Amino acid sequence: MFEQIISAIKPLDTEAMEKCQLRLDNLTKPLNSLQAFETLARQLAGITGVPRPRDLPKSIIIMAGDHGVAAEIGAYPEQTTTEKIATYCQSGAAINVFAEHVAADLVLVDIGVATDLPLSPLVRHEKLAYGTKNIVRQLAMTREQVLRAIETGIKIAREETNKGSRVIGLGEISIANDISSLAIIACYSSKTLAELTGQVNEIADECLNRKIHVLETALSVNCPDKDNPLDILMKLGGLEIAGLVGVILGAAAGGAAVVLDGLASSAAALIAVKMAPQVKDYLVGSHFSGEPAHKEALEIINVPAYLYLDLYLGEGTGAALGMSLINASLHVLNDMKTFGEAEVAVAQDGPGALKQSKDIKN
Amino acid sequence: MFEQIISAIKPLDTEAMEKCQLRLDNLTKPLNSLQAFETLARQLAGITGVPRPRDLPKSIIIMAGDHGVAAEIGAYPEQTTTEKIATYCQSGAAINVFAEHVAADLVLVDIGVATDLPLSPLVRHEKLAYGTKNIVRQLAMTREQVLRAIETGIKIAREETNKGSRVIGLGEISIANDISSLAIIACYSSKTLAELTGQVNEIADECLNRKIHVLETALSVNCPDKDNPLDILMKLGGLEIAGLVGVILGAAAGGAAVVLDGLASSAAALIAVKMAPQVKDYLVGSHFSGEPAHKEALEIINVPAYLYLDLYLGEGTGAALGMSLINASLHVLNDMKTFGEAEVAVAQDGPGALKQSKDIKN
Repeated sequence: MFEQIISAIKPLDTEAMEKCQLRLDNLTKPLNSLQAFETLARQLAGITGVPRPRDLPKSIIIMAGDHGVAAEIGAYPEQTTTEKIATYCQSGAAINVFAEHVAADLVLVDIGVATDLPLSPLVRHEKLAYGTKNIVRQLAMTREQVLRAIETGIKIAREETNKGSRVIGLGEISIANDISSLAIIACYSSKTLAELTGQVNEIADECLNRKIHVLETALSVNCPDKDNPLDILMKLGGLEIAGLVGVILGAAAGGAAVVLDGLASSAAALIAVKMAPQVKDYLVGSHFSGEPAHKEALEIINVPAYLYLDLYLGEGTGAALGMSLINASLHVLNDMKTFGEAEVAVAQDGPGALKQSKDIKN
Repeated sequence: MFEQIISAIKPLDTEAMEKCQLRLDNLTKPLNSLQAFETLARQLAGITGVPRPRDLPKSIIIMAGDHGVAAEIGAYPEQTTTEKIATYCQSGAAINVFAEHVAADLVLVDIGVATDLPLSPLVRHEKLAYGTKNIVRQLAMTREQVLRAIETGIKIAREETNKGSRVIGLGEISIANDISSLAIIACYSSKTLAELTGQVNEIADECLNRKIHVLETALSVNCPDKDNPLDILMKLGGLEIAGLVGVILGAAAGGAAVVLDGLASSAAALIAVKMAPQVKDYLVGSHFSGEPAHKEALEIINVPAYLYLDLYLGEGTGAALGMSLINASLHVLNDMKTFGEAEVAVAQDGPGALKQSKDIKN
């Protein structure tokens, strides 16, 4: 499946990366002393094929969808998804503020919200279902829904890259997609559900016990084929997670870096990397949510998180903050001087120098 | 000592903080879901006495000084300090780029560079000595030098707060001040020098063994009085570290938040907190350098780091990045809508709503 888009994901441009590294090594600083920024700058050079990329257009694609399994944990009503989207449409949500902060365009996609949304030019109406089915009883989605959700993600990512976007952030608006994300990550991890959910004491936390029980049931009822990412996605995933898988593939095929957000985006990245291992080179980490499963997923795909802010808002807020690190890394690459440019040899005994010993008691 | 400035450091304005919290709790997001940003916004409200602070003027004060102990580890020549300052004066250093990124003013202070610098309007010439003495043999500084270095920091911080600055970042340009910083942190830690330096295997790393030996010697030769922060500073510190202690005290007394940088700034913060415990409320963490001693110092003063970027450049680059988190937190506070402002009750069945079932196969 998706052979065409996967084959369009090219290896990074090593020549551009080498030229970029040469400049980084010549900047007026100790070698590699701005480590993460240098890694990011080099990666962006490889993705864009430009040794010294700057002012890269950015988009954040937010997939919104609901989960049948929400009923099992009953923490938030599905109404919340609708309210969040309404706030977003009034530019009052956190992600509106964060996206403006980093000058990123926003695209919000209703790929599977459980309610009908008012038509709005600020929402891409691509609804494939009114939420997923409850995974403690059955498959989350049909195979056709998974494929269409991925295609939708690819399509929207390609629209953004065709418009010039070279950095694409992942976001989601969804209630209970932590359950789906955990279930997906559990398929690829050797850790127990207790470890992945951070259960410390099984007597102490009724809510966490409930979550683990739901996960155990979902995994045993659905029996995902762990060698088949699409099977895992169909049985345990969410429409918005499948949509994000498509965004990752489409962005990479379109030559854009993909900035991860929290748990759901890392579950999507796991699936995408299993489908197309070369996509890994396009992934950029952002924040760490504090959830052990997020840490595990990032470790499996080997992408570091840089920001430890205990955010658990979603919407792509972490991805937006990751973009600000990309901005900083491109400032370093472009605006710092090289030793050659700086002519650091100071005319120390020239006419500008003045002994300052008058004021010194040593 | 410094009773006057210390008594000018007021407790945070709890009324402003409560009003700020009220707004944060009413923003259209789950309670506390932007955790670190909410903590920062509330702290800024308490420091400034304004429930909804915005557009706070920012300064980064960089203290430059050399260390006699550099000779013991011989990694970099002192020339490097001079070169770094020359690059800074040409706006080509990393901190120039980072400060511009966050719209912070820069003040670079020669408080103890070992060479004579050319006079420059971009450098505050406040040299108190040509570097410190070699602490494996004797005191780093005289008592008078320590006091004058702290006074210099206070004076410069107060100049910035008097000009309106409400966020002050700490920076340093210095070679081998990791030795001084480690020695200071060791005085307040129960951890061993091997633990603080991250020594894993004492056979493997000759350079680290040398550093630990230098630290052991410096501590045993100087016998610092661990109950006396000024004694520790005089015996083991650097002129730039003492200057930063003054900056911390002066900034807090002037009603400005103090953004930490790397290891040296955390050693200065340890000393400042011992001198004036209430200063703790003014401190804002930024990056974690990866050095175990940095982690230990931050844990002792109980200030979290947010950015894990493996930076080890100094100059205040981490503080500048911390300022960008403050900017983001004030964006959240000011630009996100409250539930009241957003009127999130959507007229879901009103004229704008449209059933989207046409496109759905479920």
